[in-house]
Amino acid sequence: MSERIAVIGAGAFGTALAAVMALEGRHPVTLVGRHPSLMNDLRDDRVHDAALPGVPLPDALQFTAEPDAVADASLVLFVMPSQAQGDAARHYGPYLSKDAVVVTCAKGIDRASGKLLTDVLEKELSAHPIAVLSGPGFAADIARGLPTAMAVAAADQAVAERLANALSGRTFRLYASTDRTGVQLGGALKNVLAIACGIVEGAGLGESARAALISRGLAEMSRLVEAMGGNADTVRGLSGLGDLVLTGTSHQSRNLRFGISLGRGEPASTGGPLVEGAFAASVAARLAKEFSVDLPIADAVAAIIDGSLGVQAAMERLMTRPITTE
Amino acid sequence: MSERIAVIGAGAFGTALAAVMALEGRHPVTLVGRHPSLMNDLRDDRVHDAALPGVPLPDALQFTAEPDAVADASLVLFVMPSQAQGDAARHYGPYLSKDAVVVTCAKGIDRASGKLLTDVLEKELSAHPIAVLSGPGFAADIARGLPTAMAVAAADQAVAERLANALSGRTFRLYASTDRTGVQLGGALKNVLAIACGIVEGAGLGESARAALISRGLAEMSRLVEAMGGNADTVRGLSGLGDLVLTGTSHQSRNLRFGISLGRGEPASTGGPLVEGAFAASVAARLAKEFSVDLPIADAVAAIIDGSLGVQAAMERLMTRPITTE
Repeated sequence: MSERIAVIGAGAFGTALAAVMALEGRHPVTLVGRHPSLMNDLRDDRVHDAALPGVPLPDALQFTAEPDAVADASLVLFVMPSQAQGDAARHYGPYLSKDAVVVTCAKGIDRASGKLLTDVLEKELSAHPIAVLSGPGFAADIARGLPTAMAVAAADQAVAERLANALSGRTFRLYASTDRTGVQLGGALKNVLAIACGIVEGAGLGESARAALISRGLAEMSRLVEAMGGNADTVRGLSGLGDLVLTGTSHQSRNLRFGISLGRGEPASTGGPLVEGAFAASVAARLAKEFSVDLPIADAVAAIIDGSLGVQAAMERLMTRPITTE
Repeated sequence: MSERIAVIGAGAFGTALAAVMALEGRHPVTLVGRHPSLMNDLRDDRVHDAALPGVPLPDALQFTAEPDAVADASLVLFVMPSQAQGDAARHYGPYLSKDAVVVTCAKGIDRASGKLLTDVLEKELSAHPIAVLSGPGFAADIARGLPTAMAVAAADQAVAERLANALSGRTFRLYASTDRTGVQLGGALKNVLAIACGIVEGAGLGESARAALISRGLAEMSRLVEAMGGNADTVRGLSGLGDLVLTGTSHQSRNLRFGISLGRGEPASTGGPLVEGAFAASVAARLAKEFSVDLPIADAVAAIIDGSLGVQAAMERLMTRPITTE
């Protein structure tokens, strides 16, 4: 099947996705940004110094700041932060071809409404199938052609498979799923657990404690996803576990670094508002109540961030829960 | 319930388990080793310089080289390498109290027979319930009183819960399970995947690739455990996932370091025979055939170790498998 791909959002992740897909050469790819000067520079320089320094961008990749460039795309990727996705849908929606499939590539939950991003986009772009792409993939790794694997979920299995086939290449592989809830919650909740991993590291609690936390955290994610109608197996895969492992163990992660500063006893105000997981923690704690699910780690992270619980007290609380069966 | 605990094996892990349990002070604990001079030194110095340098051992901990010291223990932990467990069972078995519960704390599969260690011990010590303790816990972290959580599995739920309660403390927590197969396979297979993580790291393939590998590796472990009569949920917990995260991301792990040298193109002979995972890889590849389960990562690791497959070719093979549903 012949596709035309538009990637909206010329940050690190959008540029990386566009670059790896263009390099593959199977389908024409256009990167669409808001700033004409940046898009002109990218076209001329074939490198995005601010976002992906030192990574050459393929000759086949097209650049534009004209929103109507999305009009001939069959697959349109929305690659901007969670809180900007609704805005982007309103801005680019009128230009979309009526058959275009839309893929949201942000990890998180809409800050204003607390909704999943596919729900936000479905409301704005009701004529289009809305899919979600998530999983463990640093922009720099993807752009450099290192092996990466992520998940892509659509409500319709055929759409998910079409996306996985069209967007995958030799180094960048997508696995198809129909569980949009699981893929999105996995992507959002792993940021909360990455903060928890950072707290453990910052407080000097050791690598064993971090590994136990990741393992118990996965059980926590599974419970919430099931309660919200998703499939627990989804978060045991790439989006969820895979992403949690990446974010919780790599110092490239902003969520982990934020947790480390909390674990060292620095105030939550430093950098907190900029970190997806800090917001997701309070949403998760709220969802835990709403769906009557026990999320002790997310609760503890939310309480540490809002200042109502100290790190030491949180660790004691987590460690002295009743001995249970795994 | 009042217990008396004997820990057989005065290496790093045995000493750490004995120390944390003695420090808890709920039950008397004796560490039993083979060498009288070492045990005398430990008793006098209250530090194990060779195994746990700088970690003070609690005053309450008893030390002995007399095998009959196990006679009054209600719980007996066997903490020596996999291949020495059968020997230890023959040596200490005659001294065990008839009601003693035996816990194997090695991770792996018996090299001579290819059997699970609980099967090996059950044959030698048929009068005793045989349990297994496994999960993410570095000896140094456990001994220092950092928070750690592991799994303990017995065929009988009541025995598993008794062990979890008796052996857990404020910093060291055990979760009870009845899935001995799952807990043991998780402990053995994670070493294979840790080698794969090392190969990815040594070959410079990036943290995203490692995260994808861990996530796909977990799916692989789950398939084999289910085929062998265990519960896939077990390997998604502490023994399995938790341990895989620890071993696959920490440079304290010998399996990971062995993988890194393979990934750099150094010959498998360097250190291979000393690494549990190198042996487990060939066992896993054999079990995959026997139980008709697809284990592409374990197969690739086994083939790289035996020299029949290069790292580059292995990665290409793993990355170009058909796009599947997760």
